[in-house]
Amino acid sequence: MVLLNFVLAESALELVPREIWSRPAVVSDATRRERKAGEILLDRSFHHSAMERLRDSEKRGRPDLVHITLLDVTGSPLYLDGRVMVYVHTYPDTVIEIEPKTRIPKNYLRFRGLMEKCLVERPTTGLLRVRQMSCSALLKMVGPGGAYGLSVRGKQSSLPDFAKRVADEGNACVVVGGFPHGHFSAETARSFDELVRIDSRPLEAHVVAARLIYQVEEAIRFND
Amino acid sequence: MVLLNFVLAESALELVPREIWSRPAVVSDATRRERKAGEILLDRSFHHSAMERLRDSEKRGRPDLVHITLLDVTGSPLYLDGRVMVYVHTYPDTVIEIEPKTRIPKNYLRFRGLMEKCLVERPTTGLLRVRQMSCSALLKMVGPGGAYGLSVRGKQSSLPDFAKRVADEGNACVVVGGFPHGHFSAETARSFDELVRIDSRPLEAHVVAARLIYQVEEAIRFND
Repeated sequence: MVLLNFVLAESALELVPREIWSRPAVVSDATRRERKAGEILLDRSFHHSAMERLRDSEKRGRPDLVHITLLDVTGSPLYLDGRVMVYVHTYPDTVIEIEPKTRIPKNYLRFRGLMEKCLVERPTTGLLRVRQMSCSALLKMVGPGGAYGLSVRGKQSSLPDFAKRVADEGNACVVVGGFPHGHFSAETARSFDELVRIDSRPLEAHVVAARLIYQVEEAIRFND
Repeated sequence: MVLLNFVLAESALELVPREIWSRPAVVSDATRRERKAGEILLDRSFHHSAMERLRDSEKRGRPDLVHITLLDVTGSPLYLDGRVMVYVHTYPDTVIEIEPKTRIPKNYLRFRGLMEKCLVERPTTGLLRVRQMSCSALLKMVGPGGAYGLSVRGKQSSLPDFAKRVADEGNACVVVGGFPHGHFSAETARSFDELVRIDSRPLEAHVVAARLIYQVEEAIRFND
């Protein structure tokens, strides 16, 4: 049974937005890959020069971060036991819901291909399911457990203590930012019951995810 | 000061070996990338059909696993504080020594390019330094601290207990297998002072690495 709902929020994962389809960096990448501009992932490694004038540019176009975080979560025993439900909420409010135990490709190019297919076709059934909803709507849908956002702006807690609370609660939702810089949007931040800080410095999403899941496992081990 | 030497051993990271340079999967990948066959990384995602007859084929050609593991190690506060020395020992006995605090590219294609450059040019100074040596020779060089291999074949220990021993020892070497399947070679296994098992099931290298480093940090926090 699911013990933990893990949400990667405002993730830097999206198809190239229409407003930059005709920018040279996008056209040349799409041409090289023989795809339409609107059917490839926005990726700062290739589209940097085209991203300058995008709104919130510094938070977007980093599918590599989402990939690494998903690998850390899905490689954990807790996930492999079917006890973690994973949701990737993205910058443009698309949510990818991952069926427990689903394996994520370790090769980045295969991951990219899978995400592109998923965001273009938007399946509503199967191992990866797509919905259009804000992070706050997602948290309401996942409820009724507590919703905890992790952020350096939060109230300091030791990770073992926080993980124990989450494990004891049994159906909590923990939200980590899936973007390289900056903070949760005001709307997302308002949807948390609590904002928690687990380290004195900002950590990358995948590092936070790996530690959190491990500590939840440790908390259960002591409860058992 | 360095507290932990982290060795990823027999890692599935190498240039395409000469014996399969002329195999069709290798030729077509090299041609597409406009590189020589001997200057690209062996990668099962692209060279699967060419790898059939390679010795220990199932342990080789997974640079993606090495990448993810390095990202988990180098994203940790312990590494960012300059307290982890990382060595990537590879299947063909090449060792890449990573200067503490060096950042590893998160984008897989950039990582691949960096590793190819490194394995072709074999720099002996700088942030990434290359030597030709076996894992056992590496452990002797890194000594005099204890050398612990992590494996499901080892003696069961709780990770917090093991991490505490490592942290208390102060200059220990922990070795994790950098390959997708199988076990350490007999020669590598003989070079450990102890073989330790930290979970009841086999875990991926990056999952083990992330947990180990986190628990070493926790152990220090309590020591301080």
